[in-house]
Amino acid sequence: MKPPIFPAAVHAAGVPPRLKTTIYPEPFASRVAGREKSVLGDLFGLTNFGVNLTRLRPGAISALRHAHSKQDEFIYVLEGHPVLVTKAGEMKLEPGMCAGFRAGAGDAHHLVNRSKEDVLYLEVGDRTADDDVVYPDDDLRLTRGADGKRSCTRRTALHIESRDVSGEP
Amino acid sequence: MKPPIFPAAVHAAGVPPRLKTTIYPEPFASRVAGREKSVLGDLFGLTNFGVNLTRLRPGAISALRHAHSKQDEFIYVLEGHPVLVTKAGEMKLEPGMCAGFRAGAGDAHHLVNRSKEDVLYLEVGDRTADDDVVYPDDDLRLTRGADGKRSCTRRTALHIESRDVSGEP
Repeated sequence: MKPPIFPAAVHAAGVPPRLKTTIYPEPFASRVAGREKSVLGDLFGLTNFGVNLTRLRPGAISALRHAHSKQDEFIYVLEGHPVLVTKAGEMKLEPGMCAGFRAGAGDAHHLVNRSKEDVLYLEVGDRTADDDVVYPDDDLRLTRGADGKRSCTRRTALHIESRDVSGEP
Repeated sequence: MKPPIFPAAVHAAGVPPRLKTTIYPEPFASRVAGREKSVLGDLFGLTNFGVNLTRLRPGAISALRHAHSKQDEFIYVLEGHPVLVTKAGEMKLEPGMCAGFRAGAGDAHHLVNRSKEDVLYLEVGDRTADDDVVYPDDDLRLTRGADGKRSCTRRTALHIESRDVSGEP
């Protein structure tokens, strides 16, 4: 097998969004329907962390409000005015603003695009093993199987879906 | 001791550059004299990876050309036109372009600002332990002491300098 060939550099806006748009089952999947992620870090063979260029159409959210146990996250706004929602409340962001969400803080977050313009931002997340994700506002959780793969489940129902989300930043 | 308080979000351009500008001894330090790093990830208590907003004045370089053994790196150009130098040669970048440098690839890289305008970019690097850095073009290396701290040394001289560079992204 030939070794993979990686580019030296790319125009981020020219990288097509990935086809797999979400790991959520319905009705949660519809809430991120206007979200497009172009995977940048993996393009260069990076494995320790992921970097995406993410676009939120008007009305879309970045994710269900969530908190990671072991993985840090960071976002940098390139275009538009997303609203950052955390336990402390809401904060309207603008281009050039950034935010970080440290592992284990227990403060769930997400971005909401309530404007009429697209929001474009960079997101970074590491891939520390044994990370758990909680969603305080929604009937959803991630669980880990014996194979190490994470699965989306409902809190109030039997296991409904199992997807490998190890590529998620 | 009171727990640290982290901001929800900040304007990246409003974060003052760090005072410690380089880990290099002379004559290498002068080559990055026009480089300013504003530390963003640490502001939010992130520990798994670092994110900096880095400015290169005309003539400055991002670092000596170097390669990491275990840590990935990623850059995204916000302003200006740096030249990316790798083993493959040179490539002029522009705003909206990004590049990744995977751990262990053995291909050293750096950015050079040969323009008359500032270059501004985001840089991300994880903090995987036991990372080594090599500088193929320069008489320099990083070594690790028994205390786990990395030190800058010359290849051709006795140990000249010892600095904790664990905060480097």
